[in-house]
Amino acid sequence: MEIEKITGRIAQDLEYLKKFTATPGEGCTRLPFTKEARDAVNYLREIMEEIGLEVHEDEAGNVIGILRGTDPDAPCVMSGSHYDSVIHGGNYDGIGGVVCSIEMARQIVESGMEHKRDLVVVGFNDEEGMRFGTGYFGSGAILGHRDESYTEQFKDASGISIAEAMKEYGLDPAKVGDAAWKEGSIGHFVEAHIEQGPVLDQKELEIGLVTGIVGIQRYMVTVHGRADHAGTTPMDMRMDAVDTASKVICKIADWAREKADGTVATVGFMNVTPGGMNIVAEKVEFTVDIRSMNNDNINDIARRIRAALERECKIMGGTYEIDTKLVIEPVALDAGMLDTLEDSCKERGYSYMRLPSGAGHDSLEIGQQLPTVMLFVSSKDGRSHAPVEFSKYSDLAKASVLMTDLVEKLLNE
Amino acid sequence: MEIEKITGRIAQDLEYLKKFTATPGEGCTRLPFTKEARDAVNYLREIMEEIGLEVHEDEAGNVIGILRGTDPDAPCVMSGSHYDSVIHGGNYDGIGGVVCSIEMARQIVESGMEHKRDLVVVGFNDEEGMRFGTGYFGSGAILGHRDESYTEQFKDASGISIAEAMKEYGLDPAKVGDAAWKEGSIGHFVEAHIEQGPVLDQKELEIGLVTGIVGIQRYMVTVHGRADHAGTTPMDMRMDAVDTASKVICKIADWAREKADGTVATVGFMNVTPGGMNIVAEKVEFTVDIRSMNNDNINDIARRIRAALERECKIMGGTYEIDTKLVIEPVALDAGMLDTLEDSCKERGYSYMRLPSGAGHDSLEIGQQLPTVMLFVSSKDGRSHAPVEFSKYSDLAKASVLMTDLVEKLLNE
Repeated sequence: MEIEKITGRIAQDLEYLKKFTATPGEGCTRLPFTKEARDAVNYLREIMEEIGLEVHEDEAGNVIGILRGTDPDAPCVMSGSHYDSVIHGGNYDGIGGVVCSIEMARQIVESGMEHKRDLVVVGFNDEEGMRFGTGYFGSGAILGHRDESYTEQFKDASGISIAEAMKEYGLDPAKVGDAAWKEGSIGHFVEAHIEQGPVLDQKELEIGLVTGIVGIQRYMVTVHGRADHAGTTPMDMRMDAVDTASKVICKIADWAREKADGTVATVGFMNVTPGGMNIVAEKVEFTVDIRSMNNDNINDIARRIRAALERECKIMGGTYEIDTKLVIEPVALDAGMLDTLEDSCKERGYSYMRLPSGAGHDSLEIGQQLPTVMLFVSSKDGRSHAPVEFSKYSDLAKASVLMTDLVEKLLNE
Repeated sequence: MEIEKITGRIAQDLEYLKKFTATPGEGCTRLPFTKEARDAVNYLREIMEEIGLEVHEDEAGNVIGILRGTDPDAPCVMSGSHYDSVIHGGNYDGIGGVVCSIEMARQIVESGMEHKRDLVVVGFNDEEGMRFGTGYFGSGAILGHRDESYTEQFKDASGISIAEAMKEYGLDPAKVGDAAWKEGSIGHFVEAHIEQGPVLDQKELEIGLVTGIVGIQRYMVTVHGRADHAGTTPMDMRMDAVDTASKVICKIADWAREKADGTVATVGFMNVTPGGMNIVAEKVEFTVDIRSMNNDNINDIARRIRAALERECKIMGGTYEIDTKLVIEPVALDAGMLDTLEDSCKERGYSYMRLPSGAGHDSLEIGQQLPTVMLFVSSKDGRSHAPVEFSKYSDLAKASVLMTDLVEKLLNE
C-alpha cells in the first residue's frame, strides 16, 4: 500500500470530521454528550462498519469497532484515541489518533491476514475533561474506574452533571460501570496522537516513539508578608512578599534545566495582593508545575522549593503555605512494543526519535494497568489546543503504517 | 502654656472634625468639593475667626486665616496642611497638621507678641488627589500652577470634572489662577503632618524633623516571552517571561538595601499573562517604585534594572519595555529652620530624630520653590490611609509648640 493512498484516506476522514464543531471557522469545539459528539461518533461508526468491524457504543459513550480473531479467549489488541476536543481546539488532537487506528484496522482487513486475537478500535469519549473539569472519562470507564456516583459528582458551567448530560444523550449513568472490560481481556493498547509540543517539528522528524508519560506535581504556593507604604517603610522594617517569592521563583526553572533530562518546571500563574504600585505586597500566590519521567527529579525540585521558601520566609519574617494540587507518577510505556516500532521506522526509513510525553493522554490512564505504547506525530510549531493546530496527513499516515506493522505482529502472539 | 491644655484643644478640634466623613464608622472619607469638605472648612473658618484671624476661602477651595503683622510689604510666614482625606482614611492625615497650625496661631495670639510679618494659616484643598487621580490641587494653586484647563482635564469616577465639581461647590474654575500668591509674598512655609510610616513609633520618638522629601521614580516594566504548553515544551525551547522577570525582580529590593541610606525599592504590582498553571507565561508586567533622598541612588537602581532586563531577556530570547510613570527629584527642606526646630526639641526635652519623608506632601509642592520645613508626629504602627490610623494628641500638641517657637522667631526676621 503506497503511503500516498493512505494519506488520502486519512485526509478524507479528518476533513469530514472537521465539520463537527460547535464553533465553525473558529477551531474545533466538540464537547462530550453534544450534537457535535453525536455527529462525529456516527461518522466513526459508519467508516468502521465500512471496513467490516462489529460496531457498538458502550455505556460511557465510547465508540468501539471489533475485528474478530479466531481465538475468542485470547486477550484483544486495543487501539484508539479520543474524539472530543477542547473549546476552540484543533482538528488533530485526539481525533487524528482515532482516524489512524481505524486506518490501521483498514490495512489489517485489506491484508486479509489470519489472526488469533481480536483487534479492537476505540474512539474514547471525554479525554480532555473540558466540559466537566475532569478527564479520561471513556478510557477510565473501560478500565472500570467510573461509576454512577462519579457521573453525579461533576457538573459543567451550566450546572449540568455528567449523569444529566448522559441521559440527555441517550445513555444511562447507572450503567456506566458496564463499560468496564473484564480483567485480562485487553492484552495490549496502542495509541497515535499529535505531539502538542515543538520537539519533533524543530528537529524535523516525522514520528516520536513515546517512552513514557511524565509524572506531574502541581502546587499552589502562598507567601505571606505585610502590606506597608512603599515610600515610608524602610527596607529593614518591611515584609515584602514579592521580594521573597521572586527569590524562590527565579531558581525553579534553573533547577529543572540542571537535570538536563527533559525535566520541566513552570510558574505560570502569579497573583500579588493588594497589587498597588506604592504598596509593599502582603501576599503572593503562585503555581508550580513540575514534570519529569524521573520521579526523583520531581521530588527533588519540590523539596528544593520548600527549603528555599523556608529560608527566604525566615529572612523576611513572614510565612508560607504549599497546597498540593496534583501528584501523578510517571508511566513507562512498553519496552518491547517500542523496540518493534523502532525496527519498523528503520526498515521503512521514517525519521523518528524516542521522547517522553509531557502531557497526559488516554495512554496515561491505560498505561498504568496494561502494556501500552504511543506514537507521536509532529505538531507544527508545537501549537495545540488552538485552531492553528496542524499536523501533516502524511505523518499521520506513517503513524498508521507503523501501528499496522506492530499490530500484525501482536495479533498472532 | 502647659502641654496638657494644648493637647486638650487639639483633641477638641480633631474630635469635632472627625464627624465630617462620608463613611461614618468606617474611617474618614472627605473628598474635595463635597458636603463633608464644606462642613470641615466651615468649622476651620469658625475656629480661625475665634482666634481673631482674617478668614477667607480662595478660588481653589483653600481656607486661609491671616494674622496681620506691622509691615504689609514683608513676605508672610505660611503654615498649614490639607483638610481632604482618602476614601476610608484616618482622622489625622492632613487635618492633624491643619489643626496644629491653627493651634500655633492661637499660641502666637495669646502670647500678645508684636510682629512685623503676616502669619498665614492654610487648610489646603485636595492634596490626596483621591477623587480626580491628581493631587496638590490647593497648594499648587497658591503657587500659580493651576489654571482652568487643568480643572477641565481631570474627571472623577462618575465622569465629573474638577471644573464641574468646583461649580457645584460654588467656585468658579475660570478664576482658579487668582488663588496664586504674588512672587515674593510668601517667605517661609511650615507644615506638621503624621509620619505615615513606622520609624518614629518603632524608635519610640515623638517628633520627626523632616530633612527632605524623597525623589521618586516609578516604572511599568513588561517582559515579553512566549506562551507554550508547560508539559510539552522542553526548557531549552521556551521563552518563560516569569522566569526572566523573577530573575530581575529578586534583586531590586537588595539593591536598595545595599545603599543603606533609607533608599527603598518596591515591586508592588505584577500581572502574568495568560496566567494558566500549565502554560508558560507569555508576558509579565510589573511596577517598580524607587525612592531616595539621593537622586543618584535612584538613577543607579533604575540603571541596574535596565541592565538586568537587557541581560536576562537576551538569555531568554524575548524582549522588554520600560514605561516611565513618574520622575520626581528629591527636595531638601530648609537647613536653618531644621536647626531651629532641633534646638527647640533639645530645650523642651522632646524626643526626636531627623528623617526623610518617603511620601509626598503639600511641602513637596511648596518646598521646590520656597524655604520649607516639615515636622512629623509618630504614627502608631506606621499605619495610615486606613481607619486604624492613630497619632497621640499630645505629640501633635508638641509639634504645635515647636512650630510656635520657630514661627515666633521668623515673624520678626
